Amino acid sequence: MDKVVVGMNQVSYSLADLVARFGGRVLGDADVRISQVATLDSAQAEQITFLASGKYRSQLDSTHAAAVIVGQADAEATQLERIVCDNPYAYFARVSALLNPLPQALPGIHPSAVIAAGAQVDATAHIGPHVVVGTGAKIGARCVIMDGCSIGEDVSIGEETRLYPNVTVYHRCVLGSRLIVHSGVVIGADGFGIAPDAGRWLKIPQIGRVVIGDDVEIGANTTIDRGALDDTVIEDGVKLDNQIQVAHNVRIGAHTAIAGCVGIAGSTTIGRHCRIGGSAGILGHLQIADHVEISSFTLIGKSIREPGSYTGSFPFSKFEDWRKNAAHLRHLDELAAKVKSLQQEIEVLRREDK
Amino acid sequence: MDKVVVGMNQVSYSLADLVARFGGRVLGDADVRISQVATLDSAQAEQITFLASGKYRSQLDSTHAAAVIVGQADAEATQLERIVCDNPYAYFARVSALLNPLPQALPGIHPSAVIAAGAQVDATAHIGPHVVVGTGAKIGARCVIMDGCSIGEDVSIGEETRLYPNVTVYHRCVLGSRLIVHSGVVIGADGFGIAPDAGRWLKIPQIGRVVIGDDVEIGANTTIDRGALDDTVIEDGVKLDNQIQVAHNVRIGAHTAIAGCVGIAGSTTIGRHCRIGGSAGILGHLQIADHVEISSFTLIGKSIREPGSYTGSFPFSKFEDWRKNAAHLRHLDELAAKVKSLQQEIEVLRREDK
Amino acid sequence: MDKVVVGMNQVSYSLADLVARFGGRVLGDADVRISQVATLDSAQAEQITFLASGKYRSQLDSTHAAAVIVGQADAEATQLERIVCDNPYAYFARVSALLNPLPQALPGIHPSAVIAAGAQVDATAHIGPHVVVGTGAKIGARCVIMDGCSIGEDVSIGEETRLYPNVTVYHRCVLGSRLIVHSGVVIGADGFGIAPDAGRWLKIPQIGRVVIGDDVEIGANTTIDRGALDDTVIEDGVKLDNQIQVAHNVRIGAHTAIAGCVGIAGSTTIGRHCRIGGSAGILGHLQIADHVEISSFTLIGKSIREPGSYTGSFPFSKFEDWRKNAAHLRHLDELAAKVKSLQQEIEVLRREDK
Repeated sequence: MDKVVVGMNQVSYSLADLVARFGGRVLGDADVRISQVATLDSAQAEQITFLASGKYRSQLDSTHAAAVIVGQADAEATQLERIVCDNPYAYFARVSALLNPLPQALPGIHPSAVIAAGAQVDATAHIGPHVVVGTGAKIGARCVIMDGCSIGEDVSIGEETRLYPNVTVYHRCVLGSRLIVHSGVVIGADGFGIAPDAGRWLKIPQIGRVVIGDDVEIGANTTIDRGALDDTVIEDGVKLDNQIQVAHNVRIGAHTAIAGCVGIAGSTTIGRHCRIGGSAGILGHLQIADHVEISSFTLIGKSIREPGSYTGSFPFSKFEDWRKNAAHLRHLDELAAKVKSLQQEIEVLRREDK
Repeated sequence: MDKVVVGMNQVSYSLADLVARFGGRVLGDADVRISQVATLDSAQAEQITFLASGKYRSQLDSTHAAAVIVGQADAEATQLERIVCDNPYAYFARVSALLNPLPQALPGIHPSAVIAAGAQVDATAHIGPHVVVGTGAKIGARCVIMDGCSIGEDVSIGEETRLYPNVTVYHRCVLGSRLIVHSGVVIGADGFGIAPDAGRWLKIPQIGRVVIGDDVEIGANTTIDRGALDDTVIEDGVKLDNQIQVAHNVRIGAHTAIAGCVGIAGSTTIGRHCRIGGSAGILGHLQIADHVEISSFTLIGKSIREPGSYTGSFPFSKFEDWRKNAAHLRHLDELAAKVKSLQQEIEVLRREDK
Repeated sequence: MDKVVVGMNQVSYSLADLVARFGGRVLGDADVRISQVATLDSAQAEQITFLASGKYRSQLDSTHAAAVIVGQADAEATQLERIVCDNPYAYFARVSALLNPLPQALPGIHPSAVIAAGAQVDATAHIGPHVVVGTGAKIGARCVIMDGCSIGEDVSIGEETRLYPNVTVYHRCVLGSRLIVHSGVVIGADGFGIAPDAGRWLKIPQIGRVVIGDDVEIGANTTIDRGALDDTVIEDGVKLDNQIQVAHNVRIGAHTAIAGCVGIAGSTTIGRHCRIGGSAGILGHLQIADHVEISSFTLIGKSIREPGSYTGSFPFSKFEDWRKNAAHLRHLDELAAKVKSLQQEIEVLRREDK
């Protein structure tokens, strides 16, 4: 296993190796070797694929994969070599992580990096070119801080956290262990705190921090603002996609996943194990319960106390149809009033009729 | 006052000191000392808090704050030491700014910065590591340009303006004095100017600039495009939150505040003292009057000539309820026609009835 | 033509020169000289403007432009010196590109750039300060890679492609020729691939690439994620505005133009020659046909098989009107049921009436 090349994987494992590591059982030839993962459609020799949903079952007949990972219900859906397990998609994730380890980064500090006196960088950490690390910052074991990152004063970063190029972390923020932070992310910029004063805005100093737990992933160009007075908090295992805006003093509960372009306004608390669709918005000072699902493009304007699925998007149609229909939205109150009045008139007619 | 530590403030002021600086009057012991600001909920000894809204009045009983800033109407709402003034939130902003000055940045140019011949950097300005300043650029007194910023050719920046790490300013843009520009901001990229030509797009060179007045704050990862021919203009005192997109030739009037994720299309003019909620959108070539409020998630598709509050978002509900209700949106025109026809039929019945 | 200064153009061309290069015909004095383009409103001596739409025709009387580019239908709409052609806006784009060439960047690698051993940088390319180029990367002839850009391992970039400052390209991505990529763009970050596993999320390694064709422009802070297994693909001539999010395994067809802040979810395919308005969203795993127009603020939740224009935004109104009208949206199903029941009751009454 000494020659791992990302994307052109020379290492291979037999199906027997895989079930020894990850459980499940092999149906077919357990000696078949696997060196990469792929989709049902594009898989080639030595590649393993997976069937997570019945709707792709028909593709089993045409795939060129060497093997497939299937659930118990699909154990006999194909004659291909296969691994049968309880959760094929999670199993596939584990096999892919085995076959596609992140590229190793050598420990050490690039000579072009600027490390302030008094910063503590673990000897096993990698600090890339043009990185800046401020006074009092601590960077833990096996962290990878790629080129162009800016780590402010007194920032604390746990172990094995990876910052891709051009990430900015403002002073005093706290990042846990095993984070993955993608390029362009800004952690700890000032929240939008302004007080009206005689027709002008006075800035409220933002003196809280951003505190992020372990095993969090943050997508490219996402921004998480520091708290105004108390902290903004992202709990363990949260997964944030790209271009999300998290305002000051928001708290996101553990293992919540949020898709791209979502905006969360200040001081809102989101529960654990929530799922929020792309471009949704959540207003400020709200409470969202655990296990809430919010659809894409939905604005949440009130607290949600019950788990469940919530939606509020406008169904699209051909422009001409939309134009005709949408015009009535500005008169819906009148329309409802008309219907009410018709009901009364009919009631009168019926009484007279008798 | 010689030892100011951000976030762990050793300096303190008596309530008497504060009213001497900022006005208002003390009720209670004017010698109580204050070293930091905090929320009603989290305040500790030596900390001052504020009551800006009646809905938090009940927290006055339980707060551990050393003092509280209240409005005239709440002067007797508590027996805590207090400062009574006309605008508690603005007063609080001033006290917080006094207790939390921005960290000082030493004048001088970091040796890793690349300053083009012919750029003029004031001797009192701070230029951080890995900054690039192009030919002909001018950076004024006491500016702080933090690490990784890119200042294009012939850019002009006033005095006391602060650029956090990794800000990009394209050539020829003009930034005023006392700006705060957060990380990841891009000022002066090309606007989206393309002309259709036989099934392809021709680029329209974007030869205008971005011109920004004084006392503007710009949130992380916000983008402001340069004008196509004339300039894009941000007037004095405008406050922009994170991830806002300002297209070419937009003009934003003085003291307007815009929340995160708003998109403003090309050539639109927004008035003075407007407030625009998060994720709102404004189409191009529109005029928005002064003192207009636009709600979150609202698309403005026509000019607004009158001050006032404008909204257009879809109210969310449980997914199943939404599905039932939203389906009718595609048939609202038919529904309205049915109601009209029912009215006519009832009219006929009533006439026959007589 | 030896002294070209951007934005203060000393070079000039006669109208005769212009029609010799770009076609069309001159009406008026063909010796009039043009050194810059401008709007009808702001044009001065030696400047040429254009009339692309009848609604600006009245401005022809007051413009101070030296000449104007008009369509055949407007050939006689003014007595100004003019060029008459078929597509005035495209003609204007060509004239402007002639008068406003991009600033030249000198070939060579800035000494502060960090170029990995094994990277291939063409001798005619410009590599700015603090750029990082990874092992195995190839940068083609006359490329301009401005300061602070990060080019990952094994990235391939064609010829004459320009990356503005602080662009990040992850490992193995492929960029074509004549691209323009604006600051803050992130190409090839991991897609949002996570598998639920006993209340936690497992990361799916993202092993595909981003592959971008020729003549593509990408606006500031736009993000394009790498594919999960197969590639994310942007075809030739696509124009992307700022702050667009393109998820993993999306394909965008040639010559499609997308305005700012649009989000496109994973595995969706968008056709050729589409136009998508600002802040629109497209859900995942959909197919959008060629020549589809999608309005601003519209969520596309189903595949679109037919060319045409599609819309689904909420019309705004004064807040009080919105509040009254929007409340009925949560009861639209009941309202429709009431109308149906009224129809039946009237039918009964009419039958009884006879």
